[in-house]
Amino acid sequence: MKVMENFADLLMEAVGSRQNPSVVSLDSDYSRLPDSLKQDSVESPESASNAMLEFNKVIIDSVRDIIPAVKLQSAFYEMYGSLGVNAFWKTAEYAKLRGMIVIGDVKRNDIGNTSKAYSDAYLGKDSPFDCITVNPYLGSDGINPFIDNVNANGKGIFILVKTSNPSSGEIQDLVSGGKKVYERVAELVDGWAQNSIGNNGYSSVGPVVGATYPEEARRLRNIMQKSIFLVPGYGAQGAGASDVMNSFNRDGNGALVVSGRGIIFTHQKSGDDFGEAAEQAALRMKEDLTTAMKDKGFYPW
Amino acid sequence: MKVMENFADLLMEAVGSRQNPSVVSLDSDYSRLPDSLKQDSVESPESASNAMLEFNKVIIDSVRDIIPAVKLQSAFYEMYGSLGVNAFWKTAEYAKLRGMIVIGDVKRNDIGNTSKAYSDAYLGKDSPFDCITVNPYLGSDGINPFIDNVNANGKGIFILVKTSNPSSGEIQDLVSGGKKVYERVAELVDGWAQNSIGNNGYSSVGPVVGATYPEEARRLRNIMQKSIFLVPGYGAQGAGASDVMNSFNRDGNGALVVSGRGIIFTHQKSGDDFGEAAEQAALRMKEDLTTAMKDKGFYPW
Repeated sequence: MKVMENFADLLMEAVGSRQNPSVVSLDSDYSRLPDSLKQDSVESPESASNAMLEFNKVIIDSVRDIIPAVKLQSAFYEMYGSLGVNAFWKTAEYAKLRGMIVIGDVKRNDIGNTSKAYSDAYLGKDSPFDCITVNPYLGSDGINPFIDNVNANGKGIFILVKTSNPSSGEIQDLVSGGKKVYERVAELVDGWAQNSIGNNGYSSVGPVVGATYPEEARRLRNIMQKSIFLVPGYGAQGAGASDVMNSFNRDGNGALVVSGRGIIFTHQKSGDDFGEAAEQAALRMKEDLTTAMKDKGFYPW
Repeated sequence: MKVMENFADLLMEAVGSRQNPSVVSLDSDYSRLPDSLKQDSVESPESASNAMLEFNKVIIDSVRDIIPAVKLQSAFYEMYGSLGVNAFWKTAEYAKLRGMIVIGDVKRNDIGNTSKAYSDAYLGKDSPFDCITVNPYLGSDGINPFIDNVNANGKGIFILVKTSNPSSGEIQDLVSGGKKVYERVAELVDGWAQNSIGNNGYSSVGPVVGATYPEEARRLRNIMQKSIFLVPGYGAQGAGASDVMNSFNRDGNGALVVSGRGIIFTHQKSGDDFGEAAEQAALRMKEDLTTAMKDKGFYPW
């Protein structure tokens, strides 16, 4: 009998094989795609979805040896209805086939029986998605159906704790019992994480922690020691490599740093060879992150 | 020049024309559909999606003269990938064509530029959805892109404040500055609501308030006086007509009461004429609600 794989173990293996804890986010907003992919003069859901899928395949092939994981931002696909959603799934299948870890950035959540439907939609055993992002506002009975599939199917979830956007503090920074709401959410996440720990000591249940809030990340690292942080906000949102170091553990593990626009849309500055431009941007990001890790003595490879 | 319609005005007109503040939720979980719609022996995404759309059309035709609004729970469609999403949109278009207010229960949210993509996906001017549900955890810059389309396109949003599920208190009931988190979120919602008020004095920006928490609803009614509450939890989740009365204003307006399984799946007790069963359940719910409203002196028609 095959032993069920653990998502955290698979993820760390993928990161280790590239010696690079970065994630490319396919925020493939059609309006920003290179002109060479816009063959129809009028944008239709069909032409937009086809162009996004074609774009994504080139990006995946260009960065797959450098970057271990790809994140798909569902919103940019849902804009084109069912055809866009088809491109979303086809991209996920392609990325999986090409050996990348696939993160569905869907931020879903609902009451229990509905969360189960979302969980089965994205974390079923045949899904190309290895993990998805989830919103915690409804508490544990909105989260447990996802954890059921994490444990049954070797999948993962990243739960919003402290998000990267400027107004994240309006709710997340409210103080309750001497702690901020995001710290209380982190305590919940740490509890949820305990039953999904792999051979390497990390859990398949982790938080989303914005790179734009490094002090908050430092506090959160202490609360959720066994979790891998998904860290958006590097690059286009303004955070640099030094800002994300607080999301790592001292062993150099435990964080995945996301860049979207800063990798996939660099062709706008360098002509239409967008695959080559993405590859170069991916290499620069790897160099930037690993230099900062080495400076901190956090480099595990 | 045509004056832009306001969602709250349209909604109240639809409610008034049926003298019924109820909403049917098409949580059309394929596994619970009548056997007569399951023509293929093996469930495929295509056969499931087709059966769900066919089921929904019958329900819509059976209740449209009784119930003013239909809510589509996205999770049950996303389970079947792009084909399920196609059934979701086709159902919305059908309900719109048949004169119902259409609520997309998607609970989306993200950082600013991504929320804009979700907003354009569901609240664009040609969308069959009149309004959607939204999650507040990221604060105002995740909400504003939705409000932009509310005001530009005559659409609406319902923001999660106090959800109906048992564990909703884990985050929402944390106490901060003498108030609970859901009350702080309600204050934010009330602020967001002020720029979208229609001729009848109600805003197109409102909260989701679970029927299972009547005391909380009473407090929330005072905080968000100009908002229409979307109130799930009646029926299958255990709340009765008396539990939802606190979500109404004294004028008998300001609340929409949702029932899903209690309307659409009553055929399991009464044979396969599921349209007739849904119509009868819708009439019972209307009678139940309006009797309670009259008892309270809240009946506006």
